[in-house]
Amino acid sequence: MKNDKIKNSALHEKEGISPPEIVSSNAVETIKNFRKKQPSSQELIEGILNGNISALSRAITLVESTNASHLAKANEVINACLPYANNSVRIGITGVPGVGKSTFIEAFGKQLTSLGKKVAVLAVDPSSTISHGSILGDKTRMEELVKDHNAYIRPSASGETLGGVARKTRETITLCEAAGFDTILIETVGVGQSETAVHSMVDFFLLLKISGAGDELQGIKRGIMEMADAIVINKADGDNIKKANLAKLEFNRALHLFPTKKSGWTPTTSTCSSLTKEGIKGVWEIIEKFLKLTKTNNYYFEKRAEQNQYWMLETINEQLKTNFYNHPEIQKLLESTKKAVSTDEISPFVAAQELLNVYQNYKKLS
Amino acid sequence: MKNDKIKNSALHEKEGISPPEIVSSNAVETIKNFRKKQPSSQELIEGILNGNISALSRAITLVESTNASHLAKANEVINACLPYANNSVRIGITGVPGVGKSTFIEAFGKQLTSLGKKVAVLAVDPSSTISHGSILGDKTRMEELVKDHNAYIRPSASGETLGGVARKTRETITLCEAAGFDTILIETVGVGQSETAVHSMVDFFLLLKISGAGDELQGIKRGIMEMADAIVINKADGDNIKKANLAKLEFNRALHLFPTKKSGWTPTTSTCSSLTKEGIKGVWEIIEKFLKLTKTNNYYFEKRAEQNQYWMLETINEQLKTNFYNHPEIQKLLESTKKAVSTDEISPFVAAQELLNVYQNYKKLS
Repeated sequence: MKNDKIKNSALHEKEGISPPEIVSSNAVETIKNFRKKQPSSQELIEGILNGNISALSRAITLVESTNASHLAKANEVINACLPYANNSVRIGITGVPGVGKSTFIEAFGKQLTSLGKKVAVLAVDPSSTISHGSILGDKTRMEELVKDHNAYIRPSASGETLGGVARKTRETITLCEAAGFDTILIETVGVGQSETAVHSMVDFFLLLKISGAGDELQGIKRGIMEMADAIVINKADGDNIKKANLAKLEFNRALHLFPTKKSGWTPTTSTCSSLTKEGIKGVWEIIEKFLKLTKTNNYYFEKRAEQNQYWMLETINEQLKTNFYNHPEIQKLLESTKKAVSTDEISPFVAAQELLNVYQNYKKLS
Repeated sequence: MKNDKIKNSALHEKEGISPPEIVSSNAVETIKNFRKKQPSSQELIEGILNGNISALSRAITLVESTNASHLAKANEVINACLPYANNSVRIGITGVPGVGKSTFIEAFGKQLTSLGKKVAVLAVDPSSTISHGSILGDKTRMEELVKDHNAYIRPSASGETLGGVARKTRETITLCEAAGFDTILIETVGVGQSETAVHSMVDFFLLLKISGAGDELQGIKRGIMEMADAIVINKADGDNIKKANLAKLEFNRALHLFPTKKSGWTPTTSTCSSLTKEGIKGVWEIIEKFLKLTKTNNYYFEKRAEQNQYWMLETINEQLKTNFYNHPEIQKLLESTKKAVSTDEISPFVAAQELLNVYQNYKKLS
């Protein structure tokens, strides 16, 4: 009876929490045992370096937390993992809804694991706070990859700002790499600035397209096209093959309008089918060529160094804002000041200065 | 002899300083007299409210200064001017180099002053620090407007960041309005994010185009097209008229692909010639229609309130960064930390946290 109750309440708790990671079913027991206690930083670090998925998932949860003590622990884990990270290729994958990102990742991920690679699939989706994950949400589309022991799928962190969501994903990459994942796929949707954020954390940026989606749609994505190292036209199967090949030519022509890339790489266009798997292998071959070139001409390493600096500065800038806007005195004054500014009672610049003065004075006292 | 020397040295000083404002020649004496002394805030405020161009120019110079005591004085002047500001229409004008922005502004400005308006022409050009003003630099293209008593032309503020340059221009608007200018034209070039900055300080956004500039060029500007309230095809004269009319139709079709604007306004397309003045009057008529609509449906006022809030937050965010990165302790550590981050000795996130901790601790002591 007592045993039953414990079992039931434990089950009940399980139901309430949606497990953020997707692992093969035989790992569930390990997770259950692991979840019972709050592991120390040292335990997490050891777990991650041993490739323990539960430890990895818990550390990612710490990274995503807004709790200050969690963040301190997360930083400790990240710094300890750092010497064991960076040995991966980071691939960004974008495309508007409907191009088949999930099915492509499923097919591409399976191709990679068949080559003996360990694949982590992450996402940057700032809309997930509201929609509870519009991408990587529907795991049923990746049912093969979900079951794969050499794959780890983690949905987007949630957060109020794209910057925050992206930063957490960037930190998650380090943890995944330390856990032995050598190929990191980062999915994003064509919403706002999320591609730019993903572009600044990957080595290779892949733009997924389909044929016949209309010129207007394609045109609006030109900014994204400029970032792409490869354009892959998906759904090139059945009646679509001819159209996909035409689209490939068209995109190839369009790509030539952009200036030469700093990487020395000429972006490629190709077609593939996530259904028939035709062309999927070719995508990895393109990436291998890219890596060979950019590791030879040093661009690969320079870009990673630049990206690291970028994320340091981004983190500082974001934290400076968070500290300011979350300060109790600023919170007291912000709404009324905004109103005064709206009605031209005070100039936006003078109002800003006044709030900054309040903040400065309280900081000195705190 | 003594007189001569004074004259010479005074003349010499004049040559060394490039006068930032362009005023009619008969105002030069007034400026000379005014320049001799450092006016008080009160004198500047009175001067501005009396429409004194020298006082206006000096106040703008204070706004543009990086000296802390100048900024305090500038804030005092701005806040005193605020109740007399805001009675203007603010028009953003953009277009890639070669569309004839300067000649359009000359023709459009003259049209406005002929209607009895007082026109201030400002610019947001973050490249001006390096190029010493690529726009509004060549005053010879605006020789008619330069001589006009009812026009005031001020080149772009210089600065290291677009945010800083744009903020100074936004503050300058307030001063110009208080000095009696009822039509503010803000020119910008199609470089980086400068259009977005200008868009956030104007009521009406005008995109200048020319026919036959190539589809690729036009296409890349789609982001800008989305912000435009009017697309005006310039250089519609001589052999160009037919092509300009075709371009007008094409742009009109393209505009229909964008979602309806919050303002309720349907963007217009028209042609004009800065040479023959054909269509220049029509541009103002379009803006008048826009103002009538948006003042009736309240969008005009809501947008200004939103813009004020935006500039307050922008100013705060920029200042928080300036305070941090200019702090002596951070300046000591920043380069070495950037290097450690580049070489993966420390994680970008942990490095950011460490710098923030240093800053926080020194702040408390200062």
